[in-house]
Amino acid sequence: MLLRHGVISAFEQLTSHSLSSSTVIRRQQFLVRTLCASRTHLPNLIRAMSSTSEADAESVLRTVTPSLDPKRHKGQAGKIAVIGGCREYTGAPYFAAISALRIGADLSHVFCTKDAAPVIKSYSPELIVHPVLEESYNISQFTEEEKRKVQDKVIGEVDKWMEIFDCLVIGPGLGRDPFLLECVSKIMLLAKKFNVPFVVDGDGLFLVTNSIDLVKSYPLAVLTPNVIEYKRLVQKVLNCEVDEGKAEDQLRSLAKQIGGVTILRKGKTDLISNGEIVKSVSIYGFPRRCGGQGDILSGSVAVFLSWAQQLKSGPESPSESPAILGCIAASGLLRKAASLAFTKHKRSTLTSDIIECLGESLEDICPVS
Amino acid sequence: MLLRHGVISAFEQLTSHSLSSSTVIRRQQFLVRTLCASRTHLPNLIRAMSSTSEADAESVLRTVTPSLDPKRHKGQAGKIAVIGGCREYTGAPYFAAISALRIGADLSHVFCTKDAAPVIKSYSPELIVHPVLEESYNISQFTEEEKRKVQDKVIGEVDKWMEIFDCLVIGPGLGRDPFLLECVSKIMLLAKKFNVPFVVDGDGLFLVTNSIDLVKSYPLAVLTPNVIEYKRLVQKVLNCEVDEGKAEDQLRSLAKQIGGVTILRKGKTDLISNGEIVKSVSIYGFPRRCGGQGDILSGSVAVFLSWAQQLKSGPESPSESPAILGCIAASGLLRKAASLAFTKHKRSTLTSDIIECLGESLEDICPVS
Repeated sequence: MLLRHGVISAFEQLTSHSLSSSTVIRRQQFLVRTLCASRTHLPNLIRAMSSTSEADAESVLRTVTPSLDPKRHKGQAGKIAVIGGCREYTGAPYFAAISALRIGADLSHVFCTKDAAPVIKSYSPELIVHPVLEESYNISQFTEEEKRKVQDKVIGEVDKWMEIFDCLVIGPGLGRDPFLLECVSKIMLLAKKFNVPFVVDGDGLFLVTNSIDLVKSYPLAVLTPNVIEYKRLVQKVLNCEVDEGKAEDQLRSLAKQIGGVTILRKGKTDLISNGEIVKSVSIYGFPRRCGGQGDILSGSVAVFLSWAQQLKSGPESPSESPAILGCIAASGLLRKAASLAFTKHKRSTLTSDIIECLGESLEDICPVS
Repeated sequence: MLLRHGVISAFEQLTSHSLSSSTVIRRQQFLVRTLCASRTHLPNLIRAMSSTSEADAESVLRTVTPSLDPKRHKGQAGKIAVIGGCREYTGAPYFAAISALRIGADLSHVFCTKDAAPVIKSYSPELIVHPVLEESYNISQFTEEEKRKVQDKVIGEVDKWMEIFDCLVIGPGLGRDPFLLECVSKIMLLAKKFNVPFVVDGDGLFLVTNSIDLVKSYPLAVLTPNVIEYKRLVQKVLNCEVDEGKAEDQLRSLAKQIGGVTILRKGKTDLISNGEIVKSVSIYGFPRRCGGQGDILSGSVAVFLSWAQQLKSGPESPSESPAILGCIAASGLLRKAASLAFTKHKRSTLTSDIIECLGESLEDICPVS
């Protein structure tokens, strides 16, 4: 079983939740039983429930995670690239890139500035780090013509790799340098040209919020905003404030307004929508809010999305989009890994500790054999 | 129970020491019993004892450490910044910043020189390291006007972040470069403007000892001198030598003379005063004196102070100041973690080993649930 969407049957929705035992579900079941006595209220109920549909994240994880086949060769389990890392930030792109590998991707690249590269390389020899991005302070003496040449060179360096990637993560530790963000805009256009999916997080969301056309109507774009980033998006795109009372409807409207991109709104409960359906993931709790968890999530979405893309061409193609499946799987896995890390390290839990638990958590849900 | 201060009752003071079983206490109890036979000497005894009031550090730790609430978002458990790290020193700011995270802060920044940044970044991807400070050797050819511009730029880089921080740690690995220290003086003024508390340690104390007005009468300043730094402070401010026979009174006078800043005098027994009360922390012994323990302490004071600040606005506001509570909690936790690390590593114990024990020690005193 995978996911079912749309307003089809309240009962069907409910029975699909065997693995999520939240009190919300039990309360819904009670409501359905009560209201079925007078069936006149059922359509309303079904409509209401469609907006609070908890995804079966563990089942999605089992569906999208490919079996390990010794006949496959390097790269077939995923080639991810993170666009991020500047003079100021180096941890975020590392977290995203190493998470992708720890989940099971074969290759993880990072495209960052020249200053950030040696540091990110020093975190791990597993990553392929390209020191190709440029920030304004390095080219402040250049003429406009020279700056354009630098930009062309940056884009050229990314261009020659682009078609091999299964998914990009754009934004972790990107910073907000105008010249750098202009280059990243062009990298987004390049990704779209090659039909490479991308996950936008952190400062990438700052860029996208101010230039929404960069992602508009690109079905392979995923945005993963936190509370503050989501607020800015809603203000900019819907021209209103966040309304928690209508959280699901507002998220659906936002995703629809951006032409059907997929949005994963991070929070105590993660909410996911592509403008059509809304899914929530609330399994496992984790009370630590140390910085870097969002980077794990963005790297994880990239891997699961690319795995779900591979399913599309297979005989058992799921009905949900790869972007929706990728978000559900990544959210579920991060929450489980964070919860596991917390049982070991308590208040002391850091993002690196959670990354160490990604493998064990995935194996627990979806054993290799 | 939290803290009791002032000269109220020698017996009350003594009964509050159930958790500290030092021979000093038993000796005091014997003295009280002996002297009570002829009560004429009691007032003197009470006066003497008021200055040796051992804080119940574990109880303070339980009071200031916030419960973990999944509804909170990133940053609410503390955003700390360390000002330190130069071409020569990189370990100290790392120790302070990573200790803050391991205790439970959400975000830990370091503002250091350009040379120090890649090294500090490479120690851990969990830290956000800003390469913004400058040393004289880098600008020796500059005119006075150009130097002023560099200074303005440095201050601007810190200024744009200042208001988000809950507490600064100023000094670990700062070095003594005159240009750099001048910038740090201005960062202190900036912190005071934003009412951001700061802990001054290491070379920050060298700066402050020579320019006492930088901290004078700022109630959110904490100084954490070791034996030598304390000696210099006493000589400079009180114009005399350290008198171990009147250790508590002298510390109280010193803190009062600097306008009520809080001073944590590190030693076999840590002594803490804000010019009004004097508290001691002597739980747990640790015979290793490897470098870096002071950096753990300064980072820890920053976290506990900012947590204690949050309590001030709540319904159960403690009577003691956040600075005093922060010092007691940090001292108690470091001593416990060091003692625990020593049981594991003996002579081989290093500062990193103590940092690894911070989480377990806090969990032991103050379990998550």
